[in-house]
Amino acid sequence: MPVPVFSTVDEVQGFCLSQQKAGKTLGLVPTMGALHKGHLSLVTLCQQHCDVTLASVYVNPSQFGPNEDFDNYPRNFEQDVALLESVGVHGIFAPTNEVMYPHGFSCKVQPPKIAGSLEGELRPNHFQGVTTVVAKLLNATRADVAVFGQKDYQQLVVIRQMVADLNMATRVIAAPTARQSDGLALSSRNRYLDADQRERALSLSRALKQTKSAVEAGNIDARELAVELMQNLIDGGVDSADYAVIADAATLEILEVVDRPAVALVAAFVGSTRLIDNLLLSE
Amino acid sequence: MPVPVFSTVDEVQGFCLSQQKAGKTLGLVPTMGALHKGHLSLVTLCQQHCDVTLASVYVNPSQFGPNEDFDNYPRNFEQDVALLESVGVHGIFAPTNEVMYPHGFSCKVQPPKIAGSLEGELRPNHFQGVTTVVAKLLNATRADVAVFGQKDYQQLVVIRQMVADLNMATRVIAAPTARQSDGLALSSRNRYLDADQRERALSLSRALKQTKSAVEAGNIDARELAVELMQNLIDGGVDSADYAVIADAATLEILEVVDRPAVALVAAFVGSTRLIDNLLLSE
Repeated sequence: MPVPVFSTVDEVQGFCLSQQKAGKTLGLVPTMGALHKGHLSLVTLCQQHCDVTLASVYVNPSQFGPNEDFDNYPRNFEQDVALLESVGVHGIFAPTNEVMYPHGFSCKVQPPKIAGSLEGELRPNHFQGVTTVVAKLLNATRADVAVFGQKDYQQLVVIRQMVADLNMATRVIAAPTARQSDGLALSSRNRYLDADQRERALSLSRALKQTKSAVEAGNIDARELAVELMQNLIDGGVDSADYAVIADAATLEILEVVDRPAVALVAAFVGSTRLIDNLLLSE
Repeated sequence: MPVPVFSTVDEVQGFCLSQQKAGKTLGLVPTMGALHKGHLSLVTLCQQHCDVTLASVYVNPSQFGPNEDFDNYPRNFEQDVALLESVGVHGIFAPTNEVMYPHGFSCKVQPPKIAGSLEGELRPNHFQGVTTVVAKLLNATRADVAVFGQKDYQQLVVIRQMVADLNMATRVIAAPTARQSDGLALSSRNRYLDADQRERALSLSRALKQTKSAVEAGNIDARELAVELMQNLIDGGVDSADYAVIADAATLEILEVVDRPAVALVAAFVGSTRLIDNLLLSE
């Protein structure tokens, strides 16, 4: 039997509520489609934590800036459905923009303060788009569990805080970043890279690994580590870097000393493609 | 057995989710306590639409302005519990401020545009306080049904829109305004009125009834009706009036002609007590 694809809120809500009334726990994996193995690992992780797993496929316009790649963001819905079916999801929610933002839509979820730095500083309104659409998806499905990739680390922290602040009955689970064998974090945007750019894109994961090694070797001077991280990014061949920081893993507060669970985060351009990556420093 | 009183989100969420996993539908009646017969009629209406009814009792600081009556807002928790028990609620959620707004809380629900006029214009941040706390209460309980009094008409419209915009799986039900035999709308703030003020407070409901009679007699000139409504309020003895308007019952757009379902809304001071009331013109 093919996996059901729901296109309206009523449809997906009807399915989810009937599952929950039957005593089943429900998990959601929100995606923007263009699925790769990273997404599928999120689905697998979700399935381990609930009875019924749904994925959403929706390229949310409100989290893209005016000069970003919304129009060109890769879309391949038929292949996404086939991939999700192959890993055994129980349903797919794939709404249109008219379903998500009908005429008169005007209520938004203002993201927590933590959304103001890093990506939020460089991409105004990005996180308001994220918190609003994720709140809508979690509400529409009443998900007991939702899985987000650690790859978008700040997004994960923002969503965790939103779920806590708004008392949503959803457990947020972080999935480890899926990487290719040479370290490149999987991303739907990697397909924008040509062979030379793909090679230079490795500098993100390599620079992060150097930072982690330095911490493990005893360097806890976070300012120095951040300067070296940035230098290694540039030396590794990115065309420009937006940030390279060492932050508190829970609050994203920029650290001076690595004296608590910390994360290194980078954002850089290779050609016109903007890539992000991060690494926990104390796993 | 006394009705259970939940003071933390985990407690109320545990109760509600276990009810829902058992296939029961759950209704919520959010209140700020100081309960009167109006609130109890909300509970009775809620019970008709669900299997398990909860009431929340929480005086939400974030919906009061700095010069409003938060500190003096009437509180009588023991009597509230006894009243709710007498009408058969299955549980009471009575959180503290620390539970609702813990250290670091920063994510808010930005209310829909409809919140910008009338009360929203006179009480900045009021509706952001309302939408945020109501979202938290609906999320914490995953209420299938929630009942709000028509007495706070704009609040009702704002919450309806929030629930729709954020895809909450909650049906919002409006309860008719409970009135004393002479027409005064029940309100926790009526207890601020002395005998003379209580008499003058009747001008709100009386002026609204005159407007309704005028519409029924064929006057559909909404501008003229609004001017008369204001005049009748003042003539009736209020000390000052904030607004007297004729609006679209669904969108609260101010009308020029009563050519669709409409509502008359008033806000006025009697002494230092601010009262609001409204009447649907086409029931």
